[in-house]
Amino acid sequence: MKERGILTVVSGFAGSGKGTLMRELTSRYDNYALSVSATTRDPRPGEKEGREYFFKSTEEFKEMIETDAFIEYAQYVNHYYGTPREYVEAQLMDGKDVILEIEIQGALQVKKKFPETLLLFVTPPSAEILKKRLVGRGTETMPVIEARLSRAAEEAEGIGAYDYLIINDQIEECVNMMHHIIRNEHMRASRNIDFINKMKEGLRSLSKGE
Amino acid sequence: MKERGILTVVSGFAGSGKGTLMRELTSRYDNYALSVSATTRDPRPGEKEGREYFFKSTEEFKEMIETDAFIEYAQYVNHYYGTPREYVEAQLMDGKDVILEIEIQGALQVKKKFPETLLLFVTPPSAEILKKRLVGRGTETMPVIEARLSRAAEEAEGIGAYDYLIINDQIEECVNMMHHIIRNEHMRASRNIDFINKMKEGLRSLSKGE
Repeated sequence: MKERGILTVVSGFAGSGKGTLMRELTSRYDNYALSVSATTRDPRPGEKEGREYFFKSTEEFKEMIETDAFIEYAQYVNHYYGTPREYVEAQLMDGKDVILEIEIQGALQVKKKFPETLLLFVTPPSAEILKKRLVGRGTETMPVIEARLSRAAEEAEGIGAYDYLIINDQIEECVNMMHHIIRNEHMRASRNIDFINKMKEGLRSLSKGE
Repeated sequence: MKERGILTVVSGFAGSGKGTLMRELTSRYDNYALSVSATTRDPRPGEKEGREYFFKSTEEFKEMIETDAFIEYAQYVNHYYGTPREYVEAQLMDGKDVILEIEIQGALQVKKKFPETLLLFVTPPSAEILKKRLVGRGTETMPVIEARLSRAAEEAEGIGAYDYLIINDQIEECVNMMHHIIRNEHMRASRNIDFINKMKEGLRSLSKGE
């Protein structure tokens, strides 16, 4: 039997660089599976069913909610977004470390349902650097940037519920750190009860000269 | 102000190879400080005050117990062994990651006093391999080896209280894993409350255009 994978939720401020981090992590190591969300919004040009999202009608989505087919879901503006349970379960059973990139509300839902979930929060080294990165993109006006910072301030209230901070200063270091955190999580005593029990039994019988 | 070091307790079966592990870890990286225990037993040839142990009279040791000068202590046969608090505190304040190599009873005492302590348990990959290693040393008779295995079986009852298992198969991998576990521990959200608070304040004031 394969060792079950670790379910990891990654959240972070807009501008924290978590998208780049995830791409690097999953392209370098083959133990990861990125979860694909379901949504009721329309596909945008270039988006592909099952790659960016599973596209569902509102009726389909609501039926999935009723049959408990989501690990977590939320409604933003007029659309639903959710993480289908089936894919995640299948990958975990196959020994893959599954990564969900979701926001804090969803992260807390997942942790409540699956307390063994690892919660990681990606943050720049300081608020000033976050602002600098948002300004540096040159794609948003100052009021929009201030709205994003205000939203980040709200999100920051929830960081304490996460297991680890990933302070995104150097991308290289950051990818390594995230990889090691997830890999080491496999070595938690609480995730190795079978190993411990086998060791106990083995020691008991060997100590009797069996 | 320097970031406070992590207090790590390492325990493991006799024959688990934890001695080699600790020597490799502390010789390779300079962020570690090994705690030196105090004892009331006599120095053996070649042992040096403050290197293997701090050698104390029974009266001195008892006075240290009364003044709460130990993080943990225990009595084995006719002698006391303990971890002096002062050295550990000074090294942690200096930002060093302090490692105590103590047995399970002591480990639980330390965790109770300092819940943020990281508990690592070093174990061979199986009971059979542990026996093979003990036999391979060629220094002990079979009854002695069986007594050690029997003791290991008792110790194994406590593994569940540890945070991580270090399964000592390849020493090289094992040293790296231990190093990463301790290093990543610095990134726990619960150890970075100051950082999180600073981030919250920074985001709040920047979002108001301050």
